[in-house]
Amino acid sequence: MTRRSEESSLPALPEEFSFIRRHFLALAGEGALGLTDDAAVFRPRPDRELVVAADAMVEGVHFLPTDPPDTIGRKLLRTNLSDMAAMDARPFGWLLTLSCPRNDGRHDDAWFAAFTAGLKQDQALFDVSLLGGDTTSTTGPLVLSLTILGDVSPGKALRRNGAQAGDGLWVTGTIGDGALGLKALLGELPDPTGWLTERYHLPRPRLGLELGNIAHAAMDVSDGLVQDTAHLARESGLGVRLDVDTVPLSDAARAVVTNDGLRELCLTGGDDYELLLAVPEEQSVQLQARCSARGVPVTRIGRFEPAGMGLKAVRRDGTSFPLSRSGWSHMGTDENFI
Amino acid sequence: MTRRSEESSLPALPEEFSFIRRHFLALAGEGALGLTDDAAVFRPRPDRELVVAADAMVEGVHFLPTDPPDTIGRKLLRTNLSDMAAMDARPFGWLLTLSCPRNDGRHDDAWFAAFTAGLKQDQALFDVSLLGGDTTSTTGPLVLSLTILGDVSPGKALRRNGAQAGDGLWVTGTIGDGALGLKALLGELPDPTGWLTERYHLPRPRLGLELGNIAHAAMDVSDGLVQDTAHLARESGLGVRLDVDTVPLSDAARAVVTNDGLRELCLTGGDDYELLLAVPEEQSVQLQARCSARGVPVTRIGRFEPAGMGLKAVRRDGTSFPLSRSGWSHMGTDENFI
Repeated sequence: MTRRSEESSLPALPEEFSFIRRHFLALAGEGALGLTDDAAVFRPRPDRELVVAADAMVEGVHFLPTDPPDTIGRKLLRTNLSDMAAMDARPFGWLLTLSCPRNDGRHDDAWFAAFTAGLKQDQALFDVSLLGGDTTSTTGPLVLSLTILGDVSPGKALRRNGAQAGDGLWVTGTIGDGALGLKALLGELPDPTGWLTERYHLPRPRLGLELGNIAHAAMDVSDGLVQDTAHLARESGLGVRLDVDTVPLSDAARAVVTNDGLRELCLTGGDDYELLLAVPEEQSVQLQARCSARGVPVTRIGRFEPAGMGLKAVRRDGTSFPLSRSGWSHMGTDENFI
Repeated sequence: MTRRSEESSLPALPEEFSFIRRHFLALAGEGALGLTDDAAVFRPRPDRELVVAADAMVEGVHFLPTDPPDTIGRKLLRTNLSDMAAMDARPFGWLLTLSCPRNDGRHDDAWFAAFTAGLKQDQALFDVSLLGGDTTSTTGPLVLSLTILGDVSPGKALRRNGAQAGDGLWVTGTIGDGALGLKALLGELPDPTGWLTERYHLPRPRLGLELGNIAHAAMDVSDGLVQDTAHLARESGLGVRLDVDTVPLSDAARAVVTNDGLRELCLTGGDDYELLLAVPEEQSVQLQARCSARGVPVTRIGRFEPAGMGLKAVRRDGTSFPLSRSGWSHMGTDENFI
């Protein structure tokens, strides 16, 4: 707002540049060019295919305004890393756009310092770096959009459409913690150990399992186990049987899941970010060995069947498990179109 | 909401899947895997470096609620393509995340049909294709975030930091149309030919000029000519003289720019998406020949000077042109951090 043209200096850098320097420069990787150019430039590994995905999160829809700021960026990064894990890809970089309410008294310097400190921790943990992005203001809630880049051995990316009838349906980790964690954060369930809320805040992308030669198909569970199981079956042109009593629950989940309603929430609630896998019988042992070597639990929870079968959710005694909904399905709440 | 588990079918696809299929599948490129997987997979050209950038746009901040829907996605795509042009890169693919208000009576099927029809036109025009993305709901205004991918000859990406003292400062096309177009849309200026509003709605990314061996430095003008000129100088450790009377205005702009206030708006308003270039004197003729061959006007508007000089905006008679602001500079309105 000063008459700079009469001074012997360049116009002062606008506030957003110092904001970016202050908070994001420490995250910038090699190709990011110090976040000062129009784009990032880097040499991809010539012996690999590129893998790219994008996800957005909206305050009040995908995370709570009261969530610790250091977990918010990490959650978005981890959900994208989970997409890389689902394709058996090795992530290396990410871009972030951030549409932030101005002067709402909440998203201040301290908030962003915590936000980016969390991201810095995860960058070290998952060996990725920031390549670029954009900040804008908005009159609505905070909106974050993250694009992740990775690479994979040519032809080895795991797809959703490769399952075959007879393949086992397997899942990593435990199911339902994220959905129960949200309920705990809303005060609707106890969570004495904090396990459930931590799983809601910080999903664990199952990277590095190298299942390209073991699984026929894979995806990550983001929209609920039932719905995502149906996706795998549909994309592969198959039916599927889901043995609901074998779906792995954590100790913390078992302690609170006292009725079929909460059991159903685990099966359909989403926010799991575990891997769902179609694995031929003859690879079962190798799958278990590989996961065990990486410290990742893996459980057989069903079987792919010929197409006419549809999706059957059955109990141990052979009866159907009643499902009133298959997962998050309302328009726009949470849909990846890749 | 039906008890699907008792039927011999897979759960119905949620509405967002048919939404994506209906509107976005026709845009999907080869690596997009039909938009059904967790990520896109493709083989980058092994002889090229990758170039990646991301930009977000918010309704009411970067575009008007009344803007034609077919121009909104195109504008965002084109601003990202302009980032590719600034690096002398060849774009090939893009990802989009879309956070949309639900049931606001405006963003309905017809709106999205027009939105994606515009994008389809531009995909053909600029030879790019959709690789993936995400849709979410929001309680705020429509937020769009786009990531663009391209490639460039190794080591040939144009940077902001390469200008040398003595280089000419050049700009493509005309400056100020976008800012004046916004004023016209707001009813504050006449625009009888519609040129100004079209330039606001549909910037023209200056792709394909192949200036890697001609220019020392480049960026695209998004935040205002003065501010972006200062960026080029700052990143190159130089001062710069901007000859304001040589800044090219379109006929439509000249017809309405009747005072220094509007002249200043042209220089600082932003939304130009023209290329700003540092070109050594001995390359001036080649620059003009190259741009002429591509049908792109290019004009010399100043000169890079040693560092102590700062930014001087001068008139033809040598007097300073008074600038009350250097460009969009308030936190978050429009800042690329790549």
